[in-house]
Amino acid sequence: MKFHSRRWVKPEDLNPNGTLFGGKLLAWIDEEAALYAIIQLENQRVVTKYMSEINFMSSAQQGDIVEIGIEVVKFGTTSLVVRSEVRNKMTHETIITVDAITMVGLDSFGKPLPHGKTTVEYMKDRLGKL
Amino acid sequence: MKFHSRRWVKPEDLNPNGTLFGGKLLAWIDEEAALYAIIQLENQRVVTKYMSEINFMSSAQQGDIVEIGIEVVKFGTTSLVVRSEVRNKMTHETIITVDAITMVGLDSFGKPLPHGKTTVEYMKDRLGKL
Amino acid sequence: MKFHSRRWVKPEDLNPNGTLFGGKLLAWIDEEAALYAIIQLENQRVVTKYMSEINFMSSAQQGDIVEIGIEVVKFGTTSLVVRSEVRNKMTHETIITVDAITMVGLDSFGKPLPHGKTTVEYMKDRLGKL
Amino acid sequence: MKFHSRRWVKPEDLNPNGTLFGGKLLAWIDEEAALYAIIQLENQRVVTKYMSEINFMSSAQQGDIVEIGIEVVKFGTTSLVVRSEVRNKMTHETIITVDAITMVGLDSFGKPLPHGKTTVEYMKDRLGKL
Amino acid sequence: MKFHSRRWVKPEDLNPNGTLFGGKLLAWIDEEAALYAIIQLENQRVVTKYMSEINFMSSAQQGDIVEIGIEVVKFGTTSLVVRSEVRNKMTHETIITVDAITMVGLDSFGKPLPHGKTTVEYMKDRLGKL
Amino acid sequence: MKFHSRRWVKPEDLNPNGTLFGGKLLAWIDEEAALYAIIQLENQRVVTKYMSEINFMSSAQQGDIVEIGIEVVKFGTTSLVVRSEVRNKMTHETIITVDAITMVGLDSFGKPLPHGKTTVEYMKDRLGKL
Repeated sequence: MKFHSRRWVKPEDLNPNGTLFGGKLLAWIDEEAALYAIIQLENQRVVTKYMSEINFMSSAQQGDIVEIGIEVVKFGTTSLVVRSEVRNKMTHETIITVDAITMVGLDSFGKPLPHGKTTVEYMKDRLGKL
Repeated sequence: MKFHSRRWVKPEDLNPNGTLFGGKLLAWIDEEAALYAIIQLENQRVVTKYMSEINFMSSAQQGDIVEIGIEVVKFGTTSLVVRSEVRNKMTHETIITVDAITMVGLDSFGKPLPHGKTTVEYMKDRLGKL
Repeated sequence: MKFHSRRWVKPEDLNPNGTLFGGKLLAWIDEEAALYAIIQLENQRVVTKYMSEINFMSSAQQGDIVEIGIEVVKFGTTSLVVRSEVRNKMTHETIITVDAITMVGLDSFGKPLPHGKTTVEYMKDRLGKL
Repeated sequence: MKFHSRRWVKPEDLNPNGTLFGGKLLAWIDEEAALYAIIQLENQRVVTKYMSEINFMSSAQQGDIVEIGIEVVKFGTTSLVVRSEVRNKMTHETIITVDAITMVGLDSFGKPLPHGKTTVEYMKDRLGKL
Repeated sequence: MKFHSRRWVKPEDLNPNGTLFGGKLLAWIDEEAALYAIIQLENQRVVTKYMSEINFMSSAQQGDIVEIGIEVVKFGTTSLVVRSEVRNKMTHETIITVDAITMVGLDSFGKPLPHGKTTVEYMKDRLGKL
Repeated sequence: MKFHSRRWVKPEDLNPNGTLFGGKLLAWIDEEAALYAIIQLENQRVVTKYMSEINFMSSAQQGDIVEIGIEVVKFGTTSLVVRSEVRNKMTHETIITVDAITMVGLDSFGKPLPHGKTTVEYMKDRLGKL
């Protein structure tokens, strides 16, 4: 799994117990999954359709650094399924895992759009094709 | 299911496609589940341990009003399991459902704390006991 | 009075003294009044025109749960006047009261729009009429 | 009246109708009144106790610049009463007025603290006394 | 230098060390420079093109009041260059200085627009010309 | 240069012209530099001391994905100097560059702390030493 984004746990990210607010963590994962899908599907109109069960395995404190990983599970016709893991950057301890997040690419009318992708592509290869 | 909180979908809640950002919705649900557990367990130190799979059934637009419902699934020894539904206030259309969110009450050392609760209590009855 | 929304007092809601920032509380009340007016007037274009004097009777701490109540004072021709009370969910202690908040419904040109309403309606009755 | 702070109306400040969210405006005024009281009372522990009625006279659009003015109404024993006006920087049109905002200085136990002030002081004069 | 805006350092503005987050401070300066340029150039389409080196000379704590000053360095053909200083309102201690911030006014196509200004103008004089 | 974090440009990140607010971009860079320094210096108490001049070379729109890169310029006795570049993920176009950001590690009294580091270390190597 590749970890493409990091976040610094600031006071605005805490719940009233002083640990990382679970809702904030879910928002970070959802953003990361959307980013990943936009890049892979080459479509800016991407929505979250489904998340599999979520285990909160450990928490994070103010000042901790978390990194958010995404990897592909499979390409559907109009969708991309990814899994995500968030971990503590210093210790590599896992904070949360989600085994499947289904992102769907839409056309300009908001309907699912077949994307024709079957495998992960890297920017450098795409640029090379120009 | 009772709907205890409402939110007005404002520009700050949108994803770049102009619909309600999924991560924001998850944060609202997590906050509502935490509130509910704090009140029922009579313990302010409550954390999210688990969410079952999440279906994003419809979206919401800027200016829509969403309401967030919570109801108890079961009381564990140290936990409370709830389900949540978010719906559009005007149409009653369902936006998202989560069948099980497990909240755990902690003691002052951060360890799970048996709560001795087995059933939903209402504030007015508790206050009546004073 | 019915209490339709709850909020969990998080670090991002505090003033530098560590109590709930008054400005945040006013923003929550204004949102709740707007929501209520939108639903009753069946018009998404609603603006705040007036608030009567505001008494800050007690404060709230990080981790407290507050609930925001709204009830109708009267229906004007283009306006709806409501009163609001915010209280601590655990103790039912009143935090703030506002006796009159005047919300006005606008047409698409931004002009006040007569709404023809004279009494509170409930969603379930409206849906029943379909 | 002196206008000590300006704000640029950004997308995050808008209500769903695309005009400045009233709750945000109230939060800006409350912050400005607190700042003013902290400086005049030379006490960082200041809370809002009362606001007189509020008239929303005009609105502001995305990209507008608003400036927030404060002036003293009177000094009480433990309080400072100010009035506030918010106006559009380019046109000087008034957006909102509040005739009385009562701020109270507290001691370290949270009790009102007599401040001994009877008139506005300016920083440059205080510094000159050092 | 004139100080046109103040901010109260709240928990949401802190870094995890509990001092004012440098990124927040830079955002406040950038907003203030944009406001100043919009007013002087009489053009709402203004963008930041350049900032000279930035010295963080001291920090600020929760509850501190900072004020943000701007003054003109020079008028270019399509640009306005300002310098900025942020200081602690109570002590007048300097927190940060930026010697040159270049703001450029754009036309409706996003191209630099000659503004014809060569000197600072005040609102009261402009209004007097009406 | 390695790009360790990505951000999705959402409505809350825009200036009133509808492009990415420069202040938000600076906040993202400052956070990324802090994260990098915390990891390299193995010290959570890190502050920004200096930024060299900043060129805003292009902008970003709502829905764009930006990635934030950091690389080491040099290790000082108590400091770490990094450079940063932010670019558009899809096109690899550069949005902003900062040639030197000086981060300083502090001890528990807030004084600069010699860190003894002279070269970049990777987590996997550190963990391998355990």
